Amino acid sequence: MNIAEVMKNLVEPESVAIVGATRKSGDFSMNIMEHILSYGYTGKLYPINPNAGEILGVKAYADISGIADPIDLALIVTARDIVPGVLRSCAHKGIKCAIIVAQGFSDAMDNEGHALNRQLTEIVRTTGIRVLGPNTFGTANAFINFSTSFARIKLDKNPVGIVCQSGLFFHGLPEFRLTGKCIDLGNACDIGFTEALDYFENDPQVKVIGLHIEGVNNPQVLLKTMERVTAKKPVIVLKTGRSEQAARAMQSHTGSLAGNSLLWDSALKRAGAIRVSDIEEFFDTVRMFSMAPLMKNNKIVVATFSGAAGILAMDAMRDTGLEIGNLSEDTIAKLVKLAPAWLKVGNPVDYWPIMMGYPDQGRAMSEVMEILLSDDEIGGVMFTQVAFTPKFDEMMAMFLNYLAGKFPHKPFMSAISGTYNGDFITGLQQDGKHLAFHTPERTATAFSHLWQYSRLRRRL
Amino acid sequence: MNIAEVMKNLVEPESVAIVGATRKSGDFSMNIMEHILSYGYTGKLYPINPNAGEILGVKAYADISGIADPIDLALIVTARDIVPGVLRSCAHKGIKCAIIVAQGFSDAMDNEGHALNRQLTEIVRTTGIRVLGPNTFGTANAFINFSTSFARIKLDKNPVGIVCQSGLFFHGLPEFRLTGKCIDLGNACDIGFTEALDYFENDPQVKVIGLHIEGVNNPQVLLKTMERVTAKKPVIVLKTGRSEQAARAMQSHTGSLAGNSLLWDSALKRAGAIRVSDIEEFFDTVRMFSMAPLMKNNKIVVATFSGAAGILAMDAMRDTGLEIGNLSEDTIAKLVKLAPAWLKVGNPVDYWPIMMGYPDQGRAMSEVMEILLSDDEIGGVMFTQVAFTPKFDEMMAMFLNYLAGKFPHKPFMSAISGTYNGDFITGLQQDGKHLAFHTPERTATAFSHLWQYSRLRRRL
Repeated sequence: MNIAEVMKNLVEPESVAIVGATRKSGDFSMNIMEHILSYGYTGKLYPINPNAGEILGVKAYADISGIADPIDLALIVTARDIVPGVLRSCAHKGIKCAIIVAQGFSDAMDNEGHALNRQLTEIVRTTGIRVLGPNTFGTANAFINFSTSFARIKLDKNPVGIVCQSGLFFHGLPEFRLTGKCIDLGNACDIGFTEALDYFENDPQVKVIGLHIEGVNNPQVLLKTMERVTAKKPVIVLKTGRSEQAARAMQSHTGSLAGNSLLWDSALKRAGAIRVSDIEEFFDTVRMFSMAPLMKNNKIVVATFSGAAGILAMDAMRDTGLEIGNLSEDTIAKLVKLAPAWLKVGNPVDYWPIMMGYPDQGRAMSEVMEILLSDDEIGGVMFTQVAFTPKFDEMMAMFLNYLAGKFPHKPFMSAISGTYNGDFITGLQQDGKHLAFHTPERTATAFSHLWQYSRLRRRL
Repeated sequence: MNIAEVMKNLVEPESVAIVGATRKSGDFSMNIMEHILSYGYTGKLYPINPNAGEILGVKAYADISGIADPIDLALIVTARDIVPGVLRSCAHKGIKCAIIVAQGFSDAMDNEGHALNRQLTEIVRTTGIRVLGPNTFGTANAFINFSTSFARIKLDKNPVGIVCQSGLFFHGLPEFRLTGKCIDLGNACDIGFTEALDYFENDPQVKVIGLHIEGVNNPQVLLKTMERVTAKKPVIVLKTGRSEQAARAMQSHTGSLAGNSLLWDSALKRAGAIRVSDIEEFFDTVRMFSMAPLMKNNKIVVATFSGAAGILAMDAMRDTGLEIGNLSEDTIAKLVKLAPAWLKVGNPVDYWPIMMGYPDQGRAMSEVMEILLSDDEIGGVMFTQVAFTPKFDEMMAMFLNYLAGKFPHKPFMSAISGTYNGDFITGLQQDGKHLAFHTPERTATAFSHLWQYSRLRRRL
């Protein structure tokens, strides 16, 4: 079986044997099979547990060899000691790939863990079975309502492929769930970043790829793959282990080497990847690329309800490669027509005094925004506002969704602060038309990454 | 009337005349008096509107001179042109202070605006009436259910005093509202940072002070005041206008000068203030100081559910002055007793494999945390976790609140990510015992500011 087929079996299995399936169920039981059933997965499940005739209404087997049907994927959730034996019996049954959930292999401090790890790689080498993990959440695939995570997760059909070294990344934020599709490499005793990246490169359901990298054994191969992939799809990278202490800790987390952070910086840049510096920026950036069109130039206009928010936005754009460009004469002329005589019309555009001059304030605000969104010389539009009250926010969501629908090819994002901003941003995200972030700073960062990638793609 | 009494009238008025009170009400009407009534303010209100006998059930007056009672505060919400006349009549009636809401004075581009501004300062000089604004939300005071903001806000009795140059700061985030007490200086034609800071210095309801500074006319006086105040209470500063473009924009926002950002950096440090770099950090830091006890040393222990989250936390602590310290032999011995044999026990403490070894996982997690919180050599404890499901989160909140209650003098904060993290963090904040943030990075930043201020206070 070639690696593309293996990856397909890992992420899109039609039949899954769960070795070590538990009979405990309910809260805190971390029963993977119960989770899978709750997601609505329609493939076949084969729980294996020598002490159970059935589990959650599904016929159970005492042993993997007792299953007559072919199996796409073996999910091994036993204690670490018996994993090599189980893996061998899976290979013997003809199963081509397995996910090993247990911890305590190359991530362990004892000799036994390392010995067990050597056994795994030896079984892979001799039988040809391929392994994801150990020490992994496995995979998630919202498009088939499937995940092997032992924590219950929420699946959304986002066009996102995540490759990570921790189950942490199977959980999104309230406004956006990364799954989509996820592959947790865990200790990566066999399958690694390159295989996962190859898979997402050719996956039509995936528009943007996010990588959480602690360390890799063969960075040159990964970087080369990345360079090829970034010509087609944006690749966002959270490379952790910047401090020496962290590098040492990673050794015990996944048993991998960290490498020098500055070297990674320049190598990732050359490969066309977008490096982000923390987990919030990772989520924001992946979400942004799942929706935003590319930018034509780096000129941003900020439409602000408040001078202070405009200044925060300008501060945030310092050193990003973005420009708070001068408005064209035509745009200025149109705005001056709407504005009170005393208002300085410039960029940022302070729309509040304009709005206040009209009985239909929503319409005045909309007119200002249409002028800015229609200006072909502007590369991107940032709207800033406070989520004041649920009623005001409802009006604002209608207005932003309307504008996003009317100008689908103009990069257009909002910075929404205030007491209700969480619910407001989550609601907009569910509507699926307009991108909003929690602060001017996070919005500016999203624009700067979009510009970085737009430049790369325009050069091709 | 001395300035302390003026500030008291501005923030704690017992009687307020609203000149230019509108009869419009309901959504989008921005009726300040309607807002004040909705908050439950019990002071006296005197709406002034020549065309109304009463407004919202409160007797209205045609003119300020028609009010027989003494008035603590005049709130002027008329168009800019008639503001000087109104202000003069307020002074004539014997009112000692006024808030001017209108825009279009030193923030305007026309000569008329600047001429109007000169008239205001002239009236202040000649009559002695003191002015907050113009171009301001005015004040907020949750402790008397009062705010002059024309946007409806939510008030919470947080021990927080905010001084700002934008109404943006009257809106908190879902998990924390800055009001407490707020003073928006607006254009600051008269009352400025120093007066507001003096007031909060001596306010027993205020434990932490947050300043949003665009520019000040007399920074030396402010910095001297700040140095005195920071010896008693933490002062958090968001100084905006880092880019030259932003500095120019500020000129038109509040008509003030920005000054050099690097000079501000060192001056604020000397004054003992905590400088933050964006609005989210501002909110986080003020919230943290409203609850956290001071740190004894800079040694942080990270308790993590995931190696990856531990590494993110270590990355975030780089260059912060914090240390991921070695655990004491005693603490290690206690943890080793609980842990599986293969686990490397170090800092970060990976509590997941420990937890998994016990039938009562919550209790095992709690035991780990008690060991860490009891260690006197540890300056601060960071707990990381995912908000998995509402049920799991409920258990986790109980556990964190219990620990926070048991160890009130140990700096202890959590980094909570995941699909439900917003609601979870907001819920914990409402419980009022334990501080949680959205990411390891934001938690590390909170610890680093706490350490910076703890060092300052310990030296005194």
